[in-house]
Amino acid sequence: MTALPVKNIFASTAAAGGGERFLTLFENPAVKIERIVSNSHSSPPDFWYDQAEDEWVIVLRGGAVLELDGGAPVELKAGDYVTIPGHVKHRVRQTGPETVWLAVHAKQ
Amino acid sequence: MTALPVKNIFASTAAAGGGERFLTLFENPAVKIERIVSNSHSSPPDFWYDQAEDEWVIVLRGGAVLELDGGAPVELKAGDYVTIPGHVKHRVRQTGPETVWLAVHAKQ
Repeated sequence: MTALPVKNIFASTAAAGGGERFLTLFENPAVKIERIVSNSHSSPPDFWYDQAEDEWVIVLRGGAVLELDGGAPVELKAGDYVTIPGHVKHRVRQTGPETVWLAVHAKQ
Repeated sequence: MTALPVKNIFASTAAAGGGERFLTLFENPAVKIERIVSNSHSSPPDFWYDQAEDEWVIVLRGGAVLELDGGAPVELKAGDYVTIPGHVKHRVRQTGPETVWLAVHAKQ
């Protein structure tokens, strides 16, 4: 008998302080799906994510502002999604409290 | 100057009748991400999805009941997610009105 475990993405989202918590929800050789809980978080000054892979992100709760290297800030509220192509440098300027993201990393 | 288009997953979710609407949000050789809007939808009787790829799904709005071949029904409410491994036959028993899913198909 097949039984699939069901979990909820909004479970245990409380986070102390101004940090980020990462939880891998699914991973295989092609793709990694992770939940990110950001609590009034900013990337360190002058820190930039620079990833080879395309990343697709959606804000499911809360809100955030992304910065792109050389680009205008990108405001994201709940339900907003964006594709960040590989090697587009980006950082998190600011998030609201208990902001829940879903990030899909395409490994190709 | 880099500018990334931001869209909202809850835009234009109204659907007439008892159907399903599919919208591809991201696709590359590794992964396809799609939004599915189900409006009080059921798969046809005796119809089963049978996919080679792993599929990860989350209900973002509304609710649904999945059936697995030979398994117990799986109830999903907003925020609930589940991985359906490749070749696990499944069908949609019923959804609520304007149920919004996100499905990630790992092509490997």
